[in-house]
Amino acid sequence: MNLDRLSRQIRFIAEVDKLKEIFRQTLCTQSRRQENDAEHSWHLALLVIVLAEHSNHQPLDVLRVLKMVIIHDLVEIDAGDTFAYDTVRMADQHEREARAADRIFGLLPDDQRDEFRALWDEFEERATPESRFAAAVDRFQPMLLNCLTEGAAWRNHGVTSDRVIARNQHIAEGSTPLWAYAARMIDDAVAAGSLAQ
Amino acid sequence: MNLDRLSRQIRFIAEVDKLKEIFRQTLCTQSRRQENDAEHSWHLALLVIVLAEHSNHQPLDVLRVLKMVIIHDLVEIDAGDTFAYDTVRMADQHEREARAADRIFGLLPDDQRDEFRALWDEFEERATPESRFAAAVDRFQPMLLNCLTEGAAWRNHGVTSDRVIARNQHIAEGSTPLWAYAARMIDDAVAAGSLAQ
Ligand SMILES: [Ca+2]
Repeated sequence: MNLDRLSRQIRFIAEVDKLKEIFRQTLCTQSRRQENDAEHSWHLALLVIVLAEHSNHQPLDVLRVLKMVIIHDLVEIDAGDTFAYDTVRMADQHEREARAADRIFGLLPDDQRDEFRALWDEFEERATPESRFAAAVDRFQPMLLNCLTEGAAWRNHGVTSDRVIARNQHIAEGSTPLWAYAARMIDDAVAAGSLAQ
Repeated sequence: MNLDRLSRQIRFIAEVDKLKEIFRQTLCTQSRRQENDAEHSWHLALLVIVLAEHSNHQPLDVLRVLKMVIIHDLVEIDAGDTFAYDTVRMADQHEREARAADRIFGLLPDDQRDEFRALWDEFEERATPESRFAAAVDRFQPMLLNCLTEGAAWRNHGVTSDRVIARNQHIAEGSTPLWAYAARMIDDAVAAGSLAQ
């Protein structure tokens, strides 16, 4: 197929419409249905523009953080969502997702394929200020929705507060104040009976 | 209520979760259910980072375009979605949405309330290169989804090709190549019987 550049880009844009059908364990606060990856990615982008000032590292390249959160879950179109506390499926998660990244980013023109793949690798590696902040909002947002839905996803999977802390404390690498806020939310959720000790 | 800055920001982030329940006329390509505003906003953000090179105006402040598309539909939490071809509801649309902007952006700390309101006003006025490009992707994305779902939203509302052209041709103000592509899509949709002449 010898599509021109714009046609390839639009084919990619049409393909990733599938992200709207990848459902997560987290519930939306209003209808209490499962959130999907497209909504989650939008919500993260909103968190980034509202909370960027709380990044430990300043100045932050907010544009690069936004690009990361916009594309970070596209691999789940092929690999599916892996629940943050599912240690069995997490074992081969990165391998499944790397294969997906090859296929999905491969739909783009070569320069954009390489740019998006580098952004996804950076997000996964969590070694830069931008990826640490992106990872912080990616962990904070489902915690917030869990707290606002009486711990639904935690209760459905028997997740306890020590596991929530272990899994999410790297929020502090991206934003100390956001982790302080999250730690208070965890305490409140335990006190309210939404999260088992 | 005397919330500190971070608490106010997180209250705003929780409130706008409601965007996931505002449904549009456009259908998702896979499940054929109605798309919601949160998914739509994510998809626009993705179009922006993939298609920015096609903006008529270069260089483009991509970060500002992203901020605009991330927040552009928040007013619909209160005002509801207004279908692009619903001339009755469009009559008082801006008034309804401006009231919503006062309430919703008013949840933020004052400096961010002012920043977000200015971004939304800029998007609505379509006078800058950034807002023209944001408006172009906001019109192009539902056209693309309509074409990929055999014109479902157009057929459901008896929309004809001349109205599609009249409503969407301002895409050309943001991106000439994107409008050229869209005009070809319209011709194809008419030829395929997805869109009435
Ligand atoms: Ca709209």
